[in-house]
Amino acid sequence: MIQYKRPDEGLGFMMQYENVAWYENGAVRILDRRIYPIRTEFVTCTRHEQVAQAIADMVTQSGGPYTAASMAMVLACFESEALPKDERTAYLEKASYTLSHARPTTSAKMQIYTGRVLEAAKKAMDEGAAGAEVTEAARQQALIDLGRRYEKSVPIGRLIANEIPDGGSILTQCWAELDIAMVLRALQEQNKTVKVFCAETRPYFQGARLTASCAVDMGFDVTVISDNMPAYTMKTKGIDLFTSAADVTTCDGYIVNKVGTFQIALACSYYGVPYIAAGNPNPAHPSIDSVVIEERDPELTLHAMDIKLTKPGVKGYYPAFDVTPPEFVTAIATDKGLFKPADLHKYFEL
Amino acid sequence: MIQYKRPDEGLGFMMQYENVAWYENGAVRILDRRIYPIRTEFVTCTRHEQVAQAIADMVTQSGGPYTAASMAMVLACFESEALPKDERTAYLEKASYTLSHARPTTSAKMQIYTGRVLEAAKKAMDEGAAGAEVTEAARQQALIDLGRRYEKSVPIGRLIANEIPDGGSILTQCWAELDIAMVLRALQEQNKTVKVFCAETRPYFQGARLTASCAVDMGFDVTVISDNMPAYTMKTKGIDLFTSAADVTTCDGYIVNKVGTFQIALACSYYGVPYIAAGNPNPAHPSIDSVVIEERDPELTLHAMDIKLTKPGVKGYYPAFDVTPPEFVTAIATDKGLFKPADLHKYFEL
Repeated sequence: MIQYKRPDEGLGFMMQYENVAWYENGAVRILDRRIYPIRTEFVTCTRHEQVAQAIADMVTQSGGPYTAASMAMVLACFESEALPKDERTAYLEKASYTLSHARPTTSAKMQIYTGRVLEAAKKAMDEGAAGAEVTEAARQQALIDLGRRYEKSVPIGRLIANEIPDGGSILTQCWAELDIAMVLRALQEQNKTVKVFCAETRPYFQGARLTASCAVDMGFDVTVISDNMPAYTMKTKGIDLFTSAADVTTCDGYIVNKVGTFQIALACSYYGVPYIAAGNPNPAHPSIDSVVIEERDPELTLHAMDIKLTKPGVKGYYPAFDVTPPEFVTAIATDKGLFKPADLHKYFEL
Repeated sequence: MIQYKRPDEGLGFMMQYENVAWYENGAVRILDRRIYPIRTEFVTCTRHEQVAQAIADMVTQSGGPYTAASMAMVLACFESEALPKDERTAYLEKASYTLSHARPTTSAKMQIYTGRVLEAAKKAMDEGAAGAEVTEAARQQALIDLGRRYEKSVPIGRLIANEIPDGGSILTQCWAELDIAMVLRALQEQNKTVKVFCAETRPYFQGARLTASCAVDMGFDVTVISDNMPAYTMKTKGIDLFTSAADVTTCDGYIVNKVGTFQIALACSYYGVPYIAAGNPNPAHPSIDSVVIEERDPELTLHAMDIKLTKPGVKGYYPAFDVTPPEFVTAIATDKGLFKPADLHKYFEL
């Protein structure tokens, strides 16, 4: 059994390793973030394609798909234990493609994670391993990657926490997973008392259900607002910082994140509230031009927790992300420090 | 029976006189706009205080409370038929106060409507009427006021429709009731084909449930977006005009309207989309300083159609309105024409 570190302590129920997405005994079990905390349910996948479908269906989102896809690669190894080396390699390469392309906007980043498990499995096979040995090598790699991802986010959380005054208030958007959880933990390390305002983030309410749950689990004073309230909340509640994750940070300093992020950034600009996004620039996206903005099933926008809100004939629209231009981003928090968007090219020089 | 005109034809189910709020046989029946169109239910009030409570509870909102309060004044006349003139007058004055103060932000405008029915009842009593005769006089006044309110909004709708190109798209916020219904009817008079995008307007979803219902009933191509999507929709769908009602138009050109309006106006400013608000300036509010922004039960923000979204311990915040400064308003549509906010003082000179 690998001795993986556990940098997930104290981050609340949702961020515990086993509750994000977990491979064990031929199955990947994923916390259903579409319904938590209204109900605590897990989706169990016995085929890696089911994990890809679960990612496409938003059973898990934010950072969850990276964990789920790594674990699903272990599952793919398990599925292919009986295959000869060449066929198994092809099977795993196909699985890596299927999993990393479950959602279009983030596929470049997903390939990093599925690719690492794929390479570990290939290496094990090259070294003569076969059958369950390869699966175990893949599992160890997935665990190492998971731990590394948590560890890498610790200093990023601290960088952002440094910018938040004791006694202040922050505003969040959607569910930034590790990025926000580590900010909150860093605030506690720094003995700062900070109020957390969470935009609820329609249509899935990730802010209300996930970010607020994580923050309240960690002991913070948490207030949920609806997505039409960020500007007014800045005016009346004195928000000191807006922070979000970035589904994509382009090398030219654009932040692609949950739809609504740009509206909040625009209000930040008006009220003089700094906006710091967390997310390393992705060399697969030298500019914003290569980013595909995913559109999801428009019916989802017409529903609230499965209740249909509209009359027959009314249409929906559901762009999953929007784009915040560099001039609306105060800083980008990365594993190499804070960068102004205009200085982001220096990230690759370090 | 008074021969009141019916300028409510063709405005869809919700805007039919009898479905907004209606006095008949000692009761006021109000369409429950909190749940329509998911369920079509009416709240029946047999005391005027129940109508005030229904208004406070948002059974009806937007323009609905003006109709409901007028009808409730008729109900107050019915309740007081056995009282001598002086006591009845005092009773009706108290009812007028109770009804007009059901919600703080709009009480100045509410008093206009309750006041007219009050004056009609007083006049009838001064002319020697008593008992049910006074109630009938009050009822006639309420009907006249209702018809007048509909008729006055017809040219306002046309003013806004004039600014919308054939083949264009508009964006709405919340449920602007007569203001938006008359814009839509004017677009049909002008034989314009226009797409309607409705921000859903949390926490009550008035845009998704009410505006979209009215527009689809009237035969429009309607798309609902969530409150985090207006800016992105402007970018991708080519919105030609944003229009809203105004819960208060101050004489110095500020628009007080459903929370989120300012965020949309800010995005309009960024994308160059004109914003026209409908609502006469209110002399009770010479400047924005006299406007009280109502805060409603914070629990409401934590719910979606009665489903609690958050863990115990998470707080909510529910400012009902926000304030859009004059520099973000392209024009204000009034019964005396379109005004730039800076020219609004001319309204009172005409």
